[in-house]
Amino acid sequence: MPSHPKITIIGAGSVVFSLGLVKDLCLTESLAGSHICFMDIDEERLDMIYRLGTRYAAELGADLTFERTLDRAIALQDAGFVVNTAAVHDEYHARDVRAVADRHGYYYGGRIPLPYYQIDLMLSIARDMVRICPDAWLICAANPVFDGTTLVSRETDIQVVGLCHGHYGYRTIAQTIGLDPDRVTWQAPGLNHNIWLTHFLHEGRDAYPLLDEWIETEAEDYWAAHVATGTHDTQMSRGAIHQYRMYGLMPIGDTPRRGGWWYHTDKETKMRWFFPPWGGPDTHEARAVTRQNKDARIARMTEAAYDDQARITEVFGTTRTREQHVPIIDGLVNDHEGTFQVNVRNDGALAGVPDDVAVEVPALVNAVGIQPLRVEPLPRKVLLECILPDWLRMEQSLEAYKTGDRSMLLYGVLDRPQTRSYDQAVAVLEEMLAMEGHEEVDEHYRWPGNWEIGEFGIGDRGNGP
Amino acid sequence: MPSHPKITIIGAGSVVFSLGLVKDLCLTESLAGSHICFMDIDEERLDMIYRLGTRYAAELGADLTFERTLDRAIALQDAGFVVNTAAVHDEYHARDVRAVADRHGYYYGGRIPLPYYQIDLMLSIARDMVRICPDAWLICAANPVFDGTTLVSRETDIQVVGLCHGHYGYRTIAQTIGLDPDRVTWQAPGLNHNIWLTHFLHEGRDAYPLLDEWIETEAEDYWAAHVATGTHDTQMSRGAIHQYRMYGLMPIGDTPRRGGWWYHTDKETKMRWFFPPWGGPDTHEARAVTRQNKDARIARMTEAAYDDQARITEVFGTTRTREQHVPIIDGLVNDHEGTFQVNVRNDGALAGVPDDVAVEVPALVNAVGIQPLRVEPLPRKVLLECILPDWLRMEQSLEAYKTGDRSMLLYGVLDRPQTRSYDQAVAVLEEMLAMEGHEEVDEHYRWPGNWEIGEFGIGDRGNGP
Repeated sequence: MPSHPKITIIGAGSVVFSLGLVKDLCLTESLAGSHICFMDIDEERLDMIYRLGTRYAAELGADLTFERTLDRAIALQDAGFVVNTAAVHDEYHARDVRAVADRHGYYYGGRIPLPYYQIDLMLSIARDMVRICPDAWLICAANPVFDGTTLVSRETDIQVVGLCHGHYGYRTIAQTIGLDPDRVTWQAPGLNHNIWLTHFLHEGRDAYPLLDEWIETEAEDYWAAHVATGTHDTQMSRGAIHQYRMYGLMPIGDTPRRGGWWYHTDKETKMRWFFPPWGGPDTHEARAVTRQNKDARIARMTEAAYDDQARITEVFGTTRTREQHVPIIDGLVNDHEGTFQVNVRNDGALAGVPDDVAVEVPALVNAVGIQPLRVEPLPRKVLLECILPDWLRMEQSLEAYKTGDRSMLLYGVLDRPQTRSYDQAVAVLEEMLAMEGHEEVDEHYRWPGNWEIGEFGIGDRGNGP
Repeated sequence: MPSHPKITIIGAGSVVFSLGLVKDLCLTESLAGSHICFMDIDEERLDMIYRLGTRYAAELGADLTFERTLDRAIALQDAGFVVNTAAVHDEYHARDVRAVADRHGYYYGGRIPLPYYQIDLMLSIARDMVRICPDAWLICAANPVFDGTTLVSRETDIQVVGLCHGHYGYRTIAQTIGLDPDRVTWQAPGLNHNIWLTHFLHEGRDAYPLLDEWIETEAEDYWAAHVATGTHDTQMSRGAIHQYRMYGLMPIGDTPRRGGWWYHTDKETKMRWFFPPWGGPDTHEARAVTRQNKDARIARMTEAAYDDQARITEVFGTTRTREQHVPIIDGLVNDHEGTFQVNVRNDGALAGVPDDVAVEVPALVNAVGIQPLRVEPLPRKVLLECILPDWLRMEQSLEAYKTGDRSMLLYGVLDRPQTRSYDQAVAVLEEMLAMEGHEEVDEHYRWPGNWEIGEFGIGDRGNGP
């Protein structure tokens, strides 16, 4: 692999992420000479990130070249790495979708699944790569990482890795109970957003007893006093510790934020398990803050991008992010070895999970490739109550997507814990599919063979056969 | 194997079942000379079935010998077949358990699981067999057949087969749409109470189109006019046909009676999907009928047993039952070959289900043994939406039983679709465990390691560590 690869960022208009990538590339001497290609379908955003990226590199005197394009085929040409960070729909659309479900009796949208846009985009990119740059790595940074990485690894021969940053939650645990996170050795395998701290050592010694002691002696005071430092601050919440009780291992990162429907039935319940003032990131109030923050950052970036007087390095700093993307690229390209938390096809790395499923495990990365560690199996309880239910949900979701079977979508809605009746499920599904922006998914999913219009109250909108 | 084996019936006080077995044995010439051992812990019931059995055989002049015992070890001594039909708790206990859940906001008890008594008894019998009659066959006739057959086949080397009669539902389909059931060739593999009609041929030709035509042209009239012939009459209900729509294959026997929580939320909903006047077998009204029927049959049997003037053959007839137990014994003992629907360890018979799980498949039975057919895989949709969720529930249940982990019981309650909140789950579980007759299960299941009394509202009853 050339030591100055072309790195393509799909959905580069996700400017916060893209600028972070540019920062890390600028600050990684060994990747000097690399070529960065920004691709997006939003020309304004694309222009903005191009300005920011080029100026940031110029200010640092970094030896990087840049390109921007609206054309995916051009972006993929000669790429060594393709980082997909694209979100088909924005936060405002997600809010509108939740509002529909809320009107049908769900709280916070009931997390009703409509598997289509994100995984379809991921697969479509991977298929283009097969044609245009079959030897390039696809780095999945966009959600759903679990479903997407699994799908791409099944349907194409593209080398694919999914990345997330939730695993840094182990640092929060260490800090909160008074340990130095840099002296912690840890392991937290599982599925993306569903990882469990199997090993937690401080200076080489098991630190779980220290956590137990903290829970015993300090947790109640901490919970009584703590106000969330951000919407995603859930790692040391009552809900996280309760999951530790239920499942026997600490859930890490985005894992405690999920953990079981019973933490999420309404705002009051969420406030009980997570922290005030938001009750975790998945409340209407928290999401409004997330939207405001994103909008504010975009505004700040836009201003900087078009203000020729601004020094981009001053606005955005010169500290490397904690993201793993650039260090992994550096490891693969320059043999700068490191251990990372990655999502890759299992093939035996995590026992109890089928081979053709993307697992999140530590991996040694160097010029040989991304080499997942074969970790110890998770406790059977975690496997049965946390991992396999999520695996099954993913399989149902991918099968629905692959077959375009509308009754499988309906099953997905019926399977949500907040769904109370069959009629409610049919009604919310049909209204969601009829929303603006959902034309493709509505077209993709059809009732199978013999449904009749109106039969059992299904297909009232008339798209039965 | 001797052609006149000792056949032991555990829980012989389930008189309806046991008398059926005696009938079939009396009417199976080739099993003449067999010895039947009735075992029960209820001395009165044991006496009754012993009287009925011996007199029935005597009236027919059948060459069978009989024995009764309260001692399981004696019953197992020299047994060739052990038929377990024992129910630890009766219908009245089940009613009381449902009543507790109903008070906590569930309908019809919410089918809250408390895996212990039935599977513990099955395993205990199998372990005694290892010691006393290691070469005997264990025939599981008691529920849960799926969990029990799986558990015994994993934990012992005893030859085990689970039997049910739900698969005869294919005959109801044929009859209802005007076909001769005796000319139907069929196959319906799956898990017990979760089987799917993959093949439905009439005189060798696919009869699914005839079913589709019936649905198209006659079903509505049928549903409008039909009154259930019994509490379990659900095979041709709206709910069954709806499952055919949802999953793509007809559910058979006890399968349509389940099918998804949304058919079972309340009486009104059940009346919609199943037939009046009961709405399927799992309503308070239907269960009361079941209890009355059972009580009436026991009364009739008791009367006959102790009336020396009664001719037992006149009271109970001389027609063989449709149960498979005796024909399978005859097949194994006398090489009288036949094909049966059995529940056995999978080992590749049904693709997509792990090897160490009991599947329900057709099997050729002769002196070689019970030889399951390696059937065609079920459609992936059925596997993902019907089979694997049930498999996962079984695995969670068996793991809970094996570990005695009370938090896994709690998970089981939380995982029920009718559970609305964490506190509700804790409350209903604790009240159920505190019921009379539940002392052993309450003792068996303990909170794991670090739960504290009252922490998170758990363990309020003071059995935390």
